[in-house]
Amino acid sequence: MQNMESSLNHYKFEVPEIIFGRGLLTQIGSCARRLGGHKVFLVSDQGLFASGWVDKALKSIMDAGLEVIYYDNITSNPKDLEVEEGAREYIRHGCDVIVGLGGGSSMDAAKGVAILVSNGGRIRDFEGPDKIFRPLPPLVLCPTTCGTGSDVSQFAIINDTERRCKLTIMSRCVAPDISLTDPDTLETLPDEFVCTTATDAMSHAMEAFFSVASTTLTDVHAIKALRLVSTSLVNAVRERRPDDLENLARASLHAGMAFSNSLLGIVHALAHPIGGLYDANHGSINAVLLPEVIKYDIPVVSEKLPELAWGLGHRTDGNIGTASEVVQEALDHMLDAAGAPRSLRSLGVDRKDLPELARRALKDVCIVTSPREADEGDLLSILEKAY
Amino acid sequence: MQNMESSLNHYKFEVPEIIFGRGLLTQIGSCARRLGGHKVFLVSDQGLFASGWVDKALKSIMDAGLEVIYYDNITSNPKDLEVEEGAREYIRHGCDVIVGLGGGSSMDAAKGVAILVSNGGRIRDFEGPDKIFRPLPPLVLCPTTCGTGSDVSQFAIINDTERRCKLTIMSRCVAPDISLTDPDTLETLPDEFVCTTATDAMSHAMEAFFSVASTTLTDVHAIKALRLVSTSLVNAVRERRPDDLENLARASLHAGMAFSNSLLGIVHALAHPIGGLYDANHGSINAVLLPEVIKYDIPVVSEKLPELAWGLGHRTDGNIGTASEVVQEALDHMLDAAGAPRSLRSLGVDRKDLPELARRALKDVCIVTSPREADEGDLLSILEKAY
Repeated sequence: MQNMESSLNHYKFEVPEIIFGRGLLTQIGSCARRLGGHKVFLVSDQGLFASGWVDKALKSIMDAGLEVIYYDNITSNPKDLEVEEGAREYIRHGCDVIVGLGGGSSMDAAKGVAILVSNGGRIRDFEGPDKIFRPLPPLVLCPTTCGTGSDVSQFAIINDTERRCKLTIMSRCVAPDISLTDPDTLETLPDEFVCTTATDAMSHAMEAFFSVASTTLTDVHAIKALRLVSTSLVNAVRERRPDDLENLARASLHAGMAFSNSLLGIVHALAHPIGGLYDANHGSINAVLLPEVIKYDIPVVSEKLPELAWGLGHRTDGNIGTASEVVQEALDHMLDAAGAPRSLRSLGVDRKDLPELARRALKDVCIVTSPREADEGDLLSILEKAY
Repeated sequence: MQNMESSLNHYKFEVPEIIFGRGLLTQIGSCARRLGGHKVFLVSDQGLFASGWVDKALKSIMDAGLEVIYYDNITSNPKDLEVEEGAREYIRHGCDVIVGLGGGSSMDAAKGVAILVSNGGRIRDFEGPDKIFRPLPPLVLCPTTCGTGSDVSQFAIINDTERRCKLTIMSRCVAPDISLTDPDTLETLPDEFVCTTATDAMSHAMEAFFSVASTTLTDVHAIKALRLVSTSLVNAVRERRPDDLENLARASLHAGMAFSNSLLGIVHALAHPIGGLYDANHGSINAVLLPEVIKYDIPVVSEKLPELAWGLGHRTDGNIGTASEVVQEALDHMLDAAGAPRSLRSLGVDRKDLPELARRALKDVCIVTSPREADEGDLLSILEKAY
């Protein structure tokens, strides 16, 4: 696939209505009502139920005078069958607005349900860019992790269980009407997910910044996301201070606004087939791939390196060589200090699958905006270095 | 009026769909059609007609298979009567979508027409925050100056000819569905308007950055706007290079995204009554007031000064005293070099009106988000220094 021409001088920028603040989960109900809903289909997962946030959401929805159907048959890397069952439940109960509450899995599942209830068919029919033709029901998304960006993005990623691959659905239709972040929800997020979802946000920001479709509108958000992650990641993981967690929630939002509009690159093109084949944690895969992809990209993005170094908290006086070193060292240091996984092997990837993963990545929509072209051999080489 | 409590930790952020690029004025028609329109009410002004851009817009609309009614009875600082006549024309012709093409005057007039055709009444009925209750017809706004920000903002400013004051209408309803910027349109903008509209963008950015309602989502856009203005203003005015003009168009967009969500401060609270009483150019008034208001604000915004200095292209190593000097000097230098007016007297303001202007500014909605509280005496003192 050829790289897209740089669209720096011709671009679109679109983000949903954003609401952000501690304690604002109580506003879910009024958001759903404001969008014209009467019966909410609430998509979440069982882990979040145990933490008490689902109860808060249910109460908010009922306080707003709306009915609600709760659906939690969702696993991580959400599966086509789970989404298709959700759509049947939505229709059976006559719902008219969808709320997704949780990490990327719950929110992407909510998007999948929204696609199916208005467009019919199976979720695999919507793979790739712009395959959705009928408008979706109103959608409110509330992230409870600090990385996915699904709450503002034009992407939904669903696992195809038959072909054991991830379907990347890309359409402005799947950006929600309202993105509502309550950073308080991060307080109950297990330590490992603070790290792995924040490294997902970091990948979003860096890939968005290097993307051939990046613009000043996306760059400012990418750089702010990196500043917030570099300031707060390690402290958030180690000490879990609310201010640091809130900074990570904010970073996730900034990174989501950036990549939803500038798209991504090789990290995500590779992470999708790996997640499809192994059901491994998406943020962990990104954390492993990011340093190798940055190394690969650096020769073609040198002009942007001083600003990136600044985003990571280092001054380089505009020197590109210094910036290149600083970026790589800062990234390595952050990943180590936060306890991120550092090899594909440690994630359970089988070395013999690497060639197949490289082949599949070539077909992922994310590769189109990579700043540096890559063939199968280049991708395989990145995978081997990250192994 | 009391200052609003800082809402840094609880906020909303909303921008329309943004389309930006040279030559994209040809997309006006397809934007109007995409919003469901069949008969476009095109609001513009006679100056723009002479430059040929209106013809391009009309052709694009007709090429998209839509009918169009052209309305250009609009003057600078658009008047209630012009807007009310426009609304009657829209209804008489059975239009169903509005396109505003031009500077702040044309776009604010388009907003005014949109308010009246769906809500009825007179435009003065909608003064202040959140007075609009019925949804507006679809709205596409295309700026052809580099400062107003009206194409993304939740503000419309209309002159009340009876009371000789500006009505500040503030509502998310008046943000358009689509903001479309074609920087090529700046090529025909008279020199003086390049300067005065860019200084308007500069005021938007600085006031948004200091606003008590600023957030990281608005700050990144405010700072980027200032970087672009400080890089390109003087060259754009003196040499009119397309790249510099494009940077100013981009700056206007960034500044608009910032102030629409963080609101403004004393510069605009004072500029509105001055514009209402004298029909003077809005950007010129801001250019005159901005340095004095910055001086007034500095004691309460010291922590933000190093970042602002960086936005203006200067490094201060985080030193607040240095940053304070740098900001004031950089601003003065830019205004002088661009040939901006530097006194209220030169704009035709009568000294005996200053107390009345201070009184009126106290009631303007923009004063609510000023970082430093101000009473009538404080405002009068600012006016006298700027005289």
